[in-house]
Amino acid sequence: MMQQKEKLEKQLDFIREIDKEKEIFRQTYLADASRKENDAEHAWHMAIMTMLLSEYANEKIDVLKTVGMLLIHDIVEIDAGDTYAYDEAGKATQHEREQKAAERIYGLLPKEQGEPLLELWEEFEAQQTPEARFARTMDNIQPMLLNDASGGRSWREHSVKLSQILGRNKRTALGSEKIWDYAFNNILKKHVESGNIIDDEGIF
Amino acid sequence: MMQQKEKLEKQLDFIREIDKEKEIFRQTYLADASRKENDAEHAWHMAIMTMLLSEYANEKIDVLKTVGMLLIHDIVEIDAGDTYAYDEAGKATQHEREQKAAERIYGLLPKEQGEPLLELWEEFEAQQTPEARFARTMDNIQPMLLNDASGGRSWREHSVKLSQILGRNKRTALGSEKIWDYAFNNILKKHVESGNIIDDEGIF
Repeated sequence: MMQQKEKLEKQLDFIREIDKEKEIFRQTYLADASRKENDAEHAWHMAIMTMLLSEYANEKIDVLKTVGMLLIHDIVEIDAGDTYAYDEAGKATQHEREQKAAERIYGLLPKEQGEPLLELWEEFEAQQTPEARFARTMDNIQPMLLNDASGGRSWREHSVKLSQILGRNKRTALGSEKIWDYAFNNILKKHVESGNIIDDEGIF
Repeated sequence: MMQQKEKLEKQLDFIREIDKEKEIFRQTYLADASRKENDAEHAWHMAIMTMLLSEYANEKIDVLKTVGMLLIHDIVEIDAGDTYAYDEAGKATQHEREQKAAERIYGLLPKEQGEPLLELWEEFEAQQTPEARFARTMDNIQPMLLNDASGGRSWREHSVKLSQILGRNKRTALGSEKIWDYAFNNILKKHVESGNIIDDEGIF
């Protein structure tokens, strides 16, 4: 009984710690452009997207595993902060900062839960499984949907070029060609044509 | 192909619509008491809690089903608003407002996805399955953990009485006796003793 209480307390320590993810803000605006969204909201949105869109995955995916991966994958940003997709300096040190954060935060849990979660996060980072590939597709498409809905505000504010978006999205089609095709032909094309994304490619 | 695009567009309409859940604020403060939390953050937190705490469920639960139920169950509040746990007037009309909201919002999805989600929400409301009972436990315990972490601020601001909390938590032990026992003996007891919760029961 004492042992079970200690276990539950470790789990609750972790549950309290991750509350901080609600205060890590991203560069993406909510659909109505009223404010930027935070990591917890982003994860919630992607988890529902995965439940609804798994049929478009290139390979069969384990939906619970993918949902879990997406729910927890940004927890490292509690220590490491959010690195904006087009911040090249921040990206250089991102992996090291995040690895250290993952070890500390997942380490709050009982070992038999913390280790599999650390591995799930590493699996997402390594991008070698169908679940990791589809999770990456969600992680790239969710902000694109919000940028589209908010009239391209975040792209304009950062003077984002199409070549940068295509670079960032190199792996999006590996998780789902159908979703990438839709986004490319319907979202990116429209925002390049309207000037919200700087056209340095001339492909549309 | 045309048919598949229409299907994806309905799914994306729903995904854009539910972004509004990020702007529905609850009465619970974040753990650091800096601001109140919103429904999307609440759902994200409970989904992770379910993944970590399912071992304490009284009955075996389907984790993916429970996670899905929790991720989507507050979407009705986009139309119906958040009804505070101790707002008796609001609670009188809550079910009707929420049923109408569920039909509109889940109705945005292709029928083969919208109907199961509407049923999943109704299953949560009906509280007749192990998953619905455990989801309710999470829905009651998550704000209690935050109220505890934030020093009982929300309880004090609303002059909440222990009898109200016990009424609200009548079903918490039905999902998990272990979690309820822990919360009762460790969280509620402490906040009654410190006066954050008004003691109208005299049981501690």
